[in-house]
Amino acid sequence: MDPTSSGLSFEVRATSGHARAGVLHTRHGDLLTPAFQPVATQSSVKALTAEDVHDTGARIVIMNTYHLWLRPGPELVAEQGGLHAFSHWPHVITTDSGGFQAFSLGEFVKLSEQGFAFKSHLDGKKLLLTPEEAMRVQGLLGSDIAMQLDVCPKGGSPRPELAEAVDRTLRWGERCLAAKAKQQALFGIVQGGTDIELRLRHAEEIAKQPFDGIALGGFSVGEPIADMYRVLSELGPAVDPRRPHYLMGVGTPEDIVRAIGWGVDLFDCVMPTRNARNGQVFVNDGRIVIKNSRYRNDPLPLDPDCGCFTCRKGYSRSYLRHLYVAQELTIFRLLSLHNLWFYAELVARARSAIERGQFAEWQTATLERFRRGAPNEGEGSPAVLPRASDESL
Amino acid sequence: MDPTSSGLSFEVRATSGHARAGVLHTRHGDLLTPAFQPVATQSSVKALTAEDVHDTGARIVIMNTYHLWLRPGPELVAEQGGLHAFSHWPHVITTDSGGFQAFSLGEFVKLSEQGFAFKSHLDGKKLLLTPEEAMRVQGLLGSDIAMQLDVCPKGGSPRPELAEAVDRTLRWGERCLAAKAKQQALFGIVQGGTDIELRLRHAEEIAKQPFDGIALGGFSVGEPIADMYRVLSELGPAVDPRRPHYLMGVGTPEDIVRAIGWGVDLFDCVMPTRNARNGQVFVNDGRIVIKNSRYRNDPLPLDPDCGCFTCRKGYSRSYLRHLYVAQELTIFRLLSLHNLWFYAELVARARSAIERGQFAEWQTATLERFRRGAPNEGEGSPAVLPRASDESL
Repeated sequence: MDPTSSGLSFEVRATSGHARAGVLHTRHGDLLTPAFQPVATQSSVKALTAEDVHDTGARIVIMNTYHLWLRPGPELVAEQGGLHAFSHWPHVITTDSGGFQAFSLGEFVKLSEQGFAFKSHLDGKKLLLTPEEAMRVQGLLGSDIAMQLDVCPKGGSPRPELAEAVDRTLRWGERCLAAKAKQQALFGIVQGGTDIELRLRHAEEIAKQPFDGIALGGFSVGEPIADMYRVLSELGPAVDPRRPHYLMGVGTPEDIVRAIGWGVDLFDCVMPTRNARNGQVFVNDGRIVIKNSRYRNDPLPLDPDCGCFTCRKGYSRSYLRHLYVAQELTIFRLLSLHNLWFYAELVARARSAIERGQFAEWQTATLERFRRGAPNEGEGSPAVLPRASDESL
Repeated sequence: MDPTSSGLSFEVRATSGHARAGVLHTRHGDLLTPAFQPVATQSSVKALTAEDVHDTGARIVIMNTYHLWLRPGPELVAEQGGLHAFSHWPHVITTDSGGFQAFSLGEFVKLSEQGFAFKSHLDGKKLLLTPEEAMRVQGLLGSDIAMQLDVCPKGGSPRPELAEAVDRTLRWGERCLAAKAKQQALFGIVQGGTDIELRLRHAEEIAKQPFDGIALGGFSVGEPIADMYRVLSELGPAVDPRRPHYLMGVGTPEDIVRAIGWGVDLFDCVMPTRNARNGQVFVNDGRIVIKNSRYRNDPLPLDPDCGCFTCRKGYSRSYLRHLYVAQELTIFRLLSLHNLWFYAELVARARSAIERGQFAEWQTATLERFRRGAPNEGEGSPAVLPRASDESL
């Protein structure tokens, strides 16, 4: 591979409707898409080792620039050989730009054309996150895929604010392209809230720039779910088809199954791991809330058809419920292993359906199965669970 | 194996001085002694799965009757096939009697000849722990080794109190023998504090009863360490040599190396797992306090000579320090795996020395190495760390 190149290339191998089955070639292996990225905020997927995450089937994770910038610091990570060596994760690593966390976690945040000025939530230290600093930090961290610094207005923001965010994100994107490490891939980010006109214009402008991939940001930030689906259904198929499409911070199994149908290739979300820590488990027919007393004497594994460590070893719902109620630390690992397996399996099945040219049929059947909910949860709880935006909070 | 027997037998295969290398035959495999029992208070060694504990080399764990009596309840465990099936631990399980926890965790505790009357620390429910109830509960739990209900005065208690505890423990021992499940082994417990006369008399009386093993209780309960060593050095070699000797709740690596020299075969202590959760790591030359800033940039594993998962996979001190400082959940598992490996390796080395007939030399060299402390901790911190008595607190 050309050492002066970003190290990333993408090919679409099959399509079914707008859905795509692709391969992302990287310095850390070939990643089959659609792919789901477990969230490793502080360079660790919560409760799991790198070996654990590999065992769930994931071959890409996303880490957090803001958190790692503050602690342990990018210079230390670089000295230890970069994030791959530091965290023992041999596969693909994405880092987000840190803008979202600087904005939501930092104190006394001031946004200007320069960047985000704020105080660290850890020690109150004054910091300035500019597009150039975001690139410098991600370059030191050594991720395969860096994200540009962007401005992400919250759901329901008025159009002038959305338009300003789009324009500034475009300008910051150019600064990021100029400042980025040569050997690192960089994705641009499309903003524009639920305004389809702004979204389409932003996507078109970004496609003119030499980004290695195009991310759809600013979704699942408080807007009604129907609005997100409406915008994604129009925006997704309009994004430059030669580049990978990454829908940031989304979502539920239902969101993922839908968005793949609109041409999305990459996802990340805290949901599988955070819900695991809250005792919520995804199964093919919906979900299990493990503390529910109906599982008190239940000798079955979470999902008899599942191949994850927890199900494969036969850990019973009865024992898992006991561990959860007693708040034994190992429960967080056992349920996280299961939920990440569920997500990895979901995108793998979507890929198979695309390769068979039968994505629409698979999508309909899968969404119907989610909608029916888990028969053993009584009220037919769907696989759609509360949303969450940042793993570390 | 005779189904009406306790399922337990013990043979001493080699001795070196008072130290013994033995085999404890059980329904769940042959256990080589000396052996260390990781503490699985609520049927889970904190932060680890049964598979993890197996990987550390341990083949026996101790679970807590008090905690499991209250939650999830012995009937539920019995319905799920007993503790082995419930918790996925295929090897030997000891359960303590619950007396110590009823006394220390229960509210409004009243001690009488009948037993301990108290209120549950979980829901305030009134409970009565009698010798018969302790046997009923342990029978339902289905451990290989049950412990008799005993009275354990705190360190420094006056002689009349110690004497009364010995007498009552003897009477309760007889009630436990009468009430125990046929297929379960039962150990008697020697009390008497630091009064060597009381200790020797109690040990002699217990040896007259058909207990499957003899435990030394009431150590490491607040008495000076020199007193514990003095009493153990005299008591240990005086205990019936045909039965396994179990020193309850002890201790540091130094304690274990010393006590093996006085004929102790079995140990349990929360220290390796609790210290792991506090970032304290045992290594052959002393200990590592992982949050120490000297490890910030240290690329070495905890102990380059160690074969545990964490060291074998090459997790660096630098990364482990980051995980600890960031309080990432996986750090508790990574350090617990290491510390339990250290304890398992320590007793395995003691056994080898006994088999070679060179225990005294090994003991001297090992204690000297501990005393010199970890060179990289600066102040030469010895492997003797603060004591702790109950994993769940």
